[in-house]
Amino acid sequence: MTPNRVIGVDLGGTKILAGIVERDGHVAHHREYVTPTESQEALLEAVDAAVAELLDDDVGAIGFGIPSTLDQRTGKAVLPPNIPIMGLPIRDRMRDRWQLPVAIENDANAAALAEWTAGAGRGSRFMVMLTLGTGIGGGFVLDGRLYRGLVGAGGEVGHMVIEHDGPLCQGNCHGHGHIEVLASGTAATKAAHEAFGPGADAHRLGRLANEGDVEAQEILRDLGRKLGSAIGSLVNLLNPELVVVGGGFAAAGDWVLVPADAVARREALPPARDLFQIVRAQLGTMAGLVGAGLVAYEALDGA
Amino acid sequence: MTPNRVIGVDLGGTKILAGIVERDGHVAHHREYVTPTESQEALLEAVDAAVAELLDDDVGAIGFGIPSTLDQRTGKAVLPPNIPIMGLPIRDRMRDRWQLPVAIENDANAAALAEWTAGAGRGSRFMVMLTLGTGIGGGFVLDGRLYRGLVGAGGEVGHMVIEHDGPLCQGNCHGHGHIEVLASGTAATKAAHEAFGPGADAHRLGRLANEGDVEAQEILRDLGRKLGSAIGSLVNLLNPELVVVGGGFAAAGDWVLVPADAVARREALPPARDLFQIVRAQLGTMAGLVGAGLVAYEALDGA
Repeated sequence: MTPNRVIGVDLGGTKILAGIVERDGHVAHHREYVTPTESQEALLEAVDAAVAELLDDDVGAIGFGIPSTLDQRTGKAVLPPNIPIMGLPIRDRMRDRWQLPVAIENDANAAALAEWTAGAGRGSRFMVMLTLGTGIGGGFVLDGRLYRGLVGAGGEVGHMVIEHDGPLCQGNCHGHGHIEVLASGTAATKAAHEAFGPGADAHRLGRLANEGDVEAQEILRDLGRKLGSAIGSLVNLLNPELVVVGGGFAAAGDWVLVPADAVARREALPPARDLFQIVRAQLGTMAGLVGAGLVAYEALDGA
Repeated sequence: MTPNRVIGVDLGGTKILAGIVERDGHVAHHREYVTPTESQEALLEAVDAAVAELLDDDVGAIGFGIPSTLDQRTGKAVLPPNIPIMGLPIRDRMRDRWQLPVAIENDANAAALAEWTAGAGRGSRFMVMLTLGTGIGGGFVLDGRLYRGLVGAGGEVGHMVIEHDGPLCQGNCHGHGHIEVLASGTAATKAAHEAFGPGADAHRLGRLANEGDVEAQEILRDLGRKLGSAIGSLVNLLNPELVVVGGGFAAAGDWVLVPADAVARREALPPARDLFQIVRAQLGTMAGLVGAGLVAYEALDGA
């Protein structure tokens, strides 16, 4: 029998999701594990155990979603991620260990492919995705294909400059005025601290806004308007039909997305301005796992 | 005999360039005309005369470069251009008039395709082009194909926001803080007026900078640094190997491009940061004509 299923593994900073993913993006079953971050050995041991748990004769490839920019030539993570895999040729390591075709993909690119195949982007041909979490990730499906660029490093929507010479970006990024530092969940939490004290976070902002707190509403609107500048730029550059917004901070919903839409339409030129919609992601925290499985099918079909 | 050549027409705001373009981008011969802007009738009459002058049995298609965003579904210019063709279905008009396949393309997209085929982008697979003139135009070749987006409106690099809620954009754009209003030749001329009086322009800035004028150098560096923010964003989004810079204001050269390169590398993430080069365009004012011819070949081959 020809193996016709794959394992997807979403290697997150706090948890690992691993599952059997069908070709249409459906997850047959999956498990969740805490990500060991104390050493590369512990991490690999946990990943190997997760794969071993799912492996059977029907599995023909494995795909990994990785929270870092990648170089697909070397199969390595490049921007120091918050998991200990820097310098490790993870694609080759997994190929050797499991003797199966292996694909790796940036986690946000994987999520974009997942939403396009099985979520909010179904049926579209040009889709941009933004994932609002601790940082801002993203990915593009252009003319019906996941966009990767020269070596797989494309789609970093969180690192668009919307404030030239603005504040230093977060994490390992040395840029300035990027949308990630100005409108991510981390930015929301920082604004929440300033307005409502150290116990407040992005989640609380949404609750307060829903309860009628004007200051919380204004904070969320301001973050949304900044997102709108980035979305407007993306519309001018890529002329997409859909802008899919996901991630934990997207839960703040219309407080963020309505002003984002208004500013994006102010910034965008016709006809692109009148041809896009902003919609919410549908796959939630499963998007990365689903996308990891979908890139595994690319490896399976190409093998 | 099968017709195997095309006519390219670059419909500029001040002049019309029309010529016979070979498949490799070589221009066999061309003519230049003043663009009549007083009426649509006068404009069409001039274009028709230019085409008639070049037409022979060997011509199988005609391509037009248009200074506006386009909707390829309708074959019309959408953003009111500075030539009187708004609302005119120019592609159908030309098809009916000449009974030949006709292609239309945004002029900056056409220039990008031209540089990729026959200029600075030859041999690359992922190329971004910026044209610095009165405005800032641009275009992308991604994975070896001109990028158009959903209806042909993509590639508007001049309308990336680099200053959220910044100054109102120019021309017919209602956006704010776009790179076009902050770093185009028009922005340079405005800065030159302020520093050196009403006789100064972008061209003079370059001359003064070369002669050692520190203020002129600083103005150009500042414009270059802003361009760098936009280029850095494009590198993060598209992971290109080449960023080709053309247009009249690009003549200011290293005074603009060296700081642009430095800021772009500050904003861009590895590995994309280390994989792109900024290079100057090679086709000069012929790029639009060449590109118009190249899209005509697409129409010829698709007919």
